[in-house]
Amino acid sequence: MVVVVRTTKRLPRAERERQMMDAAVQVFGRRGYRGASMDEVAELAGVSKPLVYLYLKSKEDLFTACIRREAQALTRAVRAGVRRDLPPDRQLWEGLRAFFRHTADHPDGWTVLHVQARTHGEPFAAEVAALRAELVSFVTQLTVVAARAAHRDPDLPEREVAGLAEALVGAAESLAAWANATEGVCAREAAATLMNFAWAGLDNLMAGRPWTPPADQD
Amino acid sequence: MVVVVRTTKRLPRAERERQMMDAAVQVFGRRGYRGASMDEVAELAGVSKPLVYLYLKSKEDLFTACIRREAQALTRAVRAGVRRDLPPDRQLWEGLRAFFRHTADHPDGWTVLHVQARTHGEPFAAEVAALRAELVSFVTQLTVVAARAAHRDPDLPEREVAGLAEALVGAAESLAAWANATEGVCAREAAATLMNFAWAGLDNLMAGRPWTPPADQD
Repeated sequence: MVVVVRTTKRLPRAERERQMMDAAVQVFGRRGYRGASMDEVAELAGVSKPLVYLYLKSKEDLFTACIRREAQALTRAVRAGVRRDLPPDRQLWEGLRAFFRHTADHPDGWTVLHVQARTHGEPFAAEVAALRAELVSFVTQLTVVAARAAHRDPDLPEREVAGLAEALVGAAESLAAWANATEGVCAREAAATLMNFAWAGLDNLMAGRPWTPPADQD
Repeated sequence: MVVVVRTTKRLPRAERERQMMDAAVQVFGRRGYRGASMDEVAELAGVSKPLVYLYLKSKEDLFTACIRREAQALTRAVRAGVRRDLPPDRQLWEGLRAFFRHTADHPDGWTVLHVQARTHGEPFAAEVAALRAELVSFVTQLTVVAARAAHRDPDLPEREVAGLAEALVGAAESLAAWANATEGVCAREAAATLMNFAWAGLDNLMAGRPWTPPADQD
């Protein structure tokens, strides 16, 4: 107890908050929103429960803050991973690697975003929807720019690109959950699986060689 | 009221339940679980509220029954859509068309499964997880069989196929929500977008031509 009080006094507020949030993400990720207790968050952070309430108000506020922080960290990691001077397939590869590396390194954060935030209604689901919209828009932009830069199909309809971006983000979300739940699947392997799945298709499409539905159907 | 009572007596129980469930899916899909009222369900079904409670017990039971019915209808539609005598790309195409046709024809049912059931915690999320597991297993099986039938890569690791199936199902879920929310995107277009995205990649993979990560990285 003496140690805790001493640590409390020594750390600046931002650092103390960060520790509490780290603890909260871990507890929410493992116990779920309903199962999480502020006692456990406080204990894991090495602070008193009143201090958690003082800094982060309520369980709902704390959960919202966790979602927002984890969402920002994930989009930042993906954006930082993409180098615009690379060819399109490398850009996508780097973005996917950054995504899967981050979700593998922060499994509790990913569970909070992908599972917990979506299974506890509003206002939490809206926070995740905003993250998702940002990732989709980033991928759309990346694909449009890549397509134009490649001078292959500058007229690739924006709506089709938007659809591809939705598909890609949905596939990545699904794969990240699977990779984290499956023994021995590393971030690189998950990224390569998605590249294998997606790249040849995108590549063909940008080159004007789409897969063609059979003609004998509506 | 007289009309309602007369209709109630005339219809067999199964048919009456079906009408109430149809109404419930529409109300849950549009208002969400919390916003839905049993009054509105009863009114839309043209029955009294006590009758809804008599047949379907509670709002929670009714929501669970809706999720289960819509999940079964969706998996049945996808399984019925796939013809095993077709080549692998046509099998996938038929399965995707069946999926997107069904989700487009039943937008409220899809919203119940994809959004509502996932945003209201247990026990609803578990129902959807079971549906998802069945779709992933179906796609995995389809891909494994297709790969072996094609005699191209009978040793394609099962784990890689499982990863691809996770990616495909995640992409399909994401696209269905996008297609239903985007004016003028038809089921065929959504299915073709996903085929374009996915098929060439799967095709290359089965032929032993995977996309290769750059060698200069970990």
